[in-house]
Amino acid sequence: MSWTLARRAARLEPSTIREILKVTERPGIISLAGGLPSADAFPVAAMAEASARVLREQPREALQYAASEGYAPLREWVAAELAAQGLRVQASQVLITTGSQQGLDLAGKVLVDPGCTVAVEAPTYLGALQAFSPYEPEFTAVAGDEQGPLPEALDAVQGARFLYLLPNFQNPSGRCLPAARRLALADRLLTLGLPVVEDNPYGDLWFDTPPPPPLAATLGDSALYLGSFSKVLAPGLRLGYVVAPPALYPKLLQAKQAADLHTPGFNQRVVYEVVRDGFLAQHVPTVRQRYKAQRDAMQVALLQHLPPGCRWEVPAGGMFFWVELPPQMDAAALLPQAVQAGVAYVPGAAFFAGGGRANTLRLSFVTVPPLRITEGVAALGRVLAAAQQAGRPSGEVL
Amino acid sequence: MSWTLARRAARLEPSTIREILKVTERPGIISLAGGLPSADAFPVAAMAEASARVLREQPREALQYAASEGYAPLREWVAAELAAQGLRVQASQVLITTGSQQGLDLAGKVLVDPGCTVAVEAPTYLGALQAFSPYEPEFTAVAGDEQGPLPEALDAVQGARFLYLLPNFQNPSGRCLPAARRLALADRLLTLGLPVVEDNPYGDLWFDTPPPPPLAATLGDSALYLGSFSKVLAPGLRLGYVVAPPALYPKLLQAKQAADLHTPGFNQRVVYEVVRDGFLAQHVPTVRQRYKAQRDAMQVALLQHLPPGCRWEVPAGGMFFWVELPPQMDAAALLPQAVQAGVAYVPGAAFFAGGGRANTLRLSFVTVPPLRITEGVAALGRVLAAAQQAGRPSGEVL
Repeated sequence: MSWTLARRAARLEPSTIREILKVTERPGIISLAGGLPSADAFPVAAMAEASARVLREQPREALQYAASEGYAPLREWVAAELAAQGLRVQASQVLITTGSQQGLDLAGKVLVDPGCTVAVEAPTYLGALQAFSPYEPEFTAVAGDEQGPLPEALDAVQGARFLYLLPNFQNPSGRCLPAARRLALADRLLTLGLPVVEDNPYGDLWFDTPPPPPLAATLGDSALYLGSFSKVLAPGLRLGYVVAPPALYPKLLQAKQAADLHTPGFNQRVVYEVVRDGFLAQHVPTVRQRYKAQRDAMQVALLQHLPPGCRWEVPAGGMFFWVELPPQMDAAALLPQAVQAGVAYVPGAAFFAGGGRANTLRLSFVTVPPLRITEGVAALGRVLAAAQQAGRPSGEVL
Repeated sequence: MSWTLARRAARLEPSTIREILKVTERPGIISLAGGLPSADAFPVAAMAEASARVLREQPREALQYAASEGYAPLREWVAAELAAQGLRVQASQVLITTGSQQGLDLAGKVLVDPGCTVAVEAPTYLGALQAFSPYEPEFTAVAGDEQGPLPEALDAVQGARFLYLLPNFQNPSGRCLPAARRLALADRLLTLGLPVVEDNPYGDLWFDTPPPPPLAATLGDSALYLGSFSKVLAPGLRLGYVVAPPALYPKLLQAKQAADLHTPGFNQRVVYEVVRDGFLAQHVPTVRQRYKAQRDAMQVALLQHLPPGCRWEVPAGGMFFWVELPPQMDAAALLPQAVQAGVAYVPGAAFFAGGGRANTLRLSFVTVPPLRITEGVAALGRVLAAAQQAGRPSGEVL
């Protein structure tokens, strides 16, 4: 072949999750693997009405090339919405992206040089590792506890280009940073001069109380903030946004132009028509209620079916349980048996930059309904119990 | 500020064209600048019908996360369509992208290392220069004539990562490579082992006869081929595709996953519903007819209004006239006077990697209707004539 690959292409590896998802598309398998929102929660009627309206009332604008910054009324809506959550920004700081995944890619493009350090949580969102990786950073994990990264651990990553942080119901751990930890982290970050890329796809999916304000509310121009419409409306529209400090915005905008000119104007206008009159205030509570019931079903099933030695926290929002198996168990090695038994999950090792923690796995409670969750967890329990039995030294009484 | 920019961010510069477009949004200015397809050509009724159908019949699939490769029936449609144009590819080689601009970004990401050479035409598509630039190549222009790059000039760029080529009604020059030139180029490229990124957004917009088969038909696995739905349907959907040799496809796919997970599934399904039953066979001829009439109007106006010493070829398709002014004139310097006179164009220098050719400009004939084209060209003619007068040595008889 006459093609020569760029050096960074060596860092482009197949997605573990996507490979697993292909397997789980087989009929009969209960997938607790993918982070797919429940299709029952998609506001189809509102979308259909909005699509029809946009193509009736503003077809020429919706179907034409458009500004790279995004559709102005939607940018204003985002700024107003964030203000209500304690994050005061100007609409001029909002850049509409083709899903919030694109925000991660643009951040990597503009901020990451080969060999520089990017600080991450352990575990962290796999898609962020994949977005940053082609720009060839070294990832360094920040030590943490069940409340998130430890402020004193940040000293070890001073000089990193930024800390990538997912404070609300993190993918994969489900963990939400308490207010005090956020403030302590923000304080330390400002002292160290370490900026943050704060990713918030799940913040609206709280079950009992909303999460504390974002770190960006304290960090100001030292934060790049990412949001998404995928979890509160639907992911198939690929609509997210970045809120950038004024000094970074022009470079991100130019990177956006180079990447895809602009996010589809049709989609932006349809979503704006859906959300403009307060639709989310009615709709999102129904999603929360649905996901909370599914979380509860999974918690009951986990308590009933998982063998002794498995540990997990109950997530207060979002989409995932994060399960720690007994130390000797390997979630990736057990996956084929689980699929054989009719259930799929994501082994946890992929969520650690540099690998590790083979005895962890991620379970999504949003994709399938409660009865299937119970069935799936029961199957998983049987696989784990059998593995535990098999792992005992021979001669031990079974 | 605590942020540190990546080195490549220095290569992210504001788009000249986008800055000009902002000016031309002022009411009263006739814009011959932007490459905006005529909104009168958008198939709004077909889009509205298809959107409604998709949200009625397959809402869950259309609004859910989807495969990074793209919607399978659309990939098959693309493969079949290309076969009819002489390019035999498998659907498995088709990667659906968020506009064909994204195909350029992915090609840059996977193929361009800092300091490597990328060979381009002179002039070439500005958006490609912008997409590749952040990956820090050195651009080298291949010498050419009115039929395109010269095969013997390719020897000078042997060792380049690829040649970027827009053979059909090029943006900005309007030039279409004759069949013999394509074959001679393909032959020389294969001998040199120099692969091609072949971009074809305008191929369907021919006015009298279709363009010859793409170089990719001869080059096979030494070509990466890019196509778009922006010009035959509408750009606001952001839908394009890459056809990749099997050895490159997995890396491009992984780069696509990292960039935005997948192209909006809703848009892919809507476009598939529009095109599946042969809609383009009826629709595209109406676009061709419209644009041909507008090209003719511009040609008549140019002949009538441009002062002596201006040169241009009549494009046989696409969207642009490329005008060469007398050597001493500077199209960028004259733009403010043109805007003052009520007409906008794009100065040609930006289309040359490394700049140059200040006496060139690009005029789009697709955005405004014939009467406005005539008015706009007349205004341009007055500005050029005045500049020519002013440029004469004093004392000459005026």
